[in-house]
Amino acid sequence: MRGVMLYGPRDVRVEERPDPTIIEPTDAIIRVSATCVCGSDLWPYRGIEPITEPTPMGHEYVGIVEEVGSAVKNIKPGQFVIGSFMASDNTCPICQAGYQSRCVHVVAMGSIGTQAPFARIPLADGTLVATPGIPPDDLIPSLLAASDVLGTAWFAADAAAVGPGETVAVVGDGAVGLLGVLAAKQRGAERIIAMSRHEARQRLAREFGATDIVTERGDDGVARIKDMTSGLGAHSVIEAVGNQESMLQAIRSTRPGGHVGYVGVSHGVELPGQEMFFAEVHLLGGPAPVRRFLPELVDLIWNRKIDPGKVFDLELPLEQAAEGYLAMDERRAIKTLLHP
Amino acid sequence: MRGVMLYGPRDVRVEERPDPTIIEPTDAIIRVSATCVCGSDLWPYRGIEPITEPTPMGHEYVGIVEEVGSAVKNIKPGQFVIGSFMASDNTCPICQAGYQSRCVHVVAMGSIGTQAPFARIPLADGTLVATPGIPPDDLIPSLLAASDVLGTAWFAADAAAVGPGETVAVVGDGAVGLLGVLAAKQRGAERIIAMSRHEARQRLAREFGATDIVTERGDDGVARIKDMTSGLGAHSVIEAVGNQESMLQAIRSTRPGGHVGYVGVSHGVELPGQEMFFAEVHLLGGPAPVRRFLPELVDLIWNRKIDPGKVFDLELPLEQAAEGYLAMDERRAIKTLLHP
Repeated sequence: MRGVMLYGPRDVRVEERPDPTIIEPTDAIIRVSATCVCGSDLWPYRGIEPITEPTPMGHEYVGIVEEVGSAVKNIKPGQFVIGSFMASDNTCPICQAGYQSRCVHVVAMGSIGTQAPFARIPLADGTLVATPGIPPDDLIPSLLAASDVLGTAWFAADAAAVGPGETVAVVGDGAVGLLGVLAAKQRGAERIIAMSRHEARQRLAREFGATDIVTERGDDGVARIKDMTSGLGAHSVIEAVGNQESMLQAIRSTRPGGHVGYVGVSHGVELPGQEMFFAEVHLLGGPAPVRRFLPELVDLIWNRKIDPGKVFDLELPLEQAAEGYLAMDERRAIKTLLHP
Repeated sequence: MRGVMLYGPRDVRVEERPDPTIIEPTDAIIRVSATCVCGSDLWPYRGIEPITEPTPMGHEYVGIVEEVGSAVKNIKPGQFVIGSFMASDNTCPICQAGYQSRCVHVVAMGSIGTQAPFARIPLADGTLVATPGIPPDDLIPSLLAASDVLGTAWFAADAAAVGPGETVAVVGDGAVGLLGVLAAKQRGAERIIAMSRHEARQRLAREFGATDIVTERGDDGVARIKDMTSGLGAHSVIEAVGNQESMLQAIRSTRPGGHVGYVGVSHGVELPGQEMFFAEVHLLGGPAPVRRFLPELVDLIWNRKIDPGKVFDLELPLEQAAEGYLAMDERRAIKTLLHP
């Protein structure tokens, strides 16, 4: 099959890769209906997270089950399925507590590479959620979003304890940040402040439910949030970038006793202990346990209550993956969907 | 009056200080029945938190109201009262959310210095809680403990989301750590692991409800906790030291999705963002909003359900405060009560 490989900084190639096969009896093979490029793929793409050898890319996927291993009981060939970027057994104590991305048997789908027409899904019964039927084409982008960015945003809003009537600030205007706005809206937040200086993203943020846009960053951004909240700070802040500035911006924008949910993959961040101590905010973040939210997300999408697929503003054939990466790197595209 | 002053590292003196007077109409003046030395007083005592001028010491207190300002409505002269180490109005949005230590009008009692026979209590109606009557002498140490160390431990257990049936680890065997064991026991934890290598403190930990003692520290301590929890880590960890080793020990001892409540005043801590991201634990800490817990704590103590006063293993007249500090510095005493 043809699959996307990264050879080094900004060197994306589509080339022959071996067709996946069942390795463990708990595996499934899916025919990928759609896959996409993630903001986190840009870390190795930009060389910030160096790779040591040519690496298969992609960890988001929806598709139709082709084949299952002998130990797979619930997932059946022919089903349309979605799974998280982390394969999980969904039965261990960590999974049962809702942290499937840290399952004791976790397999990172990024190590498999789903930017391809077929993919092996480990721990298929735990990982995959089947939709009520084969979806119409126009639902596929939204279902695909649930595989990572939507689920990640849902986790961020949950980690940030977003609740009815609250003020929420969102740091980061990538797909996850924008969907964080949507998640906050769904959870009943009253005021949702999107921090963005990019017009198209501001528009989508408003469409998803943002009530305010703040263009300032860093300490100026913090000062604006404080101004808007009687000097107290937001109840909840979603951090969806992952660098030092964005983390401090998130923590400093939160009122004492408030919550920061951080999902931007952390790069070069050192949190000053004393500042955190006196900030006295709840912090929770990490790779999102998307699996926890998938049934709810599939339901919302299937019944057309939410339309997270709007974050895909570029669709390309898999063969043109390199342009898909470049467009996101240059911020010409929010998120690129790839048709295998 | 005679009050305790710190002149520099290990230079504690008891000397004449002006009698306190009502400054704001919301103030009260109390006659201090008992006060004490806090683990956090050892930071400036040891010169780790340098002072620039002779400084009044002490922030813990119980006593009898002598006088109230014209705006004080609920607190009356003659009442026996307890307050937190942070004075708070208890009405602002931050207080109402339960974070009184970060009240918008907060006054740190440490800036006033309660190691003295009298003390001015700002925001008396918000800060002080009256007991049902004048307590018998033997209850005074426990009530005094509620002013900081017990309330701080209660907050740590709450921040660490300690719940019934859970495994809790406690990092630090000072008064707060030991009372963290007591708090975990009260919240129904099944297994309470005290990390201590000091025999007298281990004994008190067991008395307060510890089921296990771990003497290893740092990564060895983490490995022991993992061993005891099927490799997963504790559900909840209370951190009651405040340095880099103890914070990392706490975070690394916690299972993914678990909770760290950290109340050791942070000194020289830098938390590595990437490790925190992949640890995926809830973090909450800071100066404890003791006021939130005071009514419950007074009730438990008054009805002799808990006996936190056991942490005071040294009682001295105020004039001998210097020895009280030294005994704690040398870990000969867990906590020193001072009789004004």
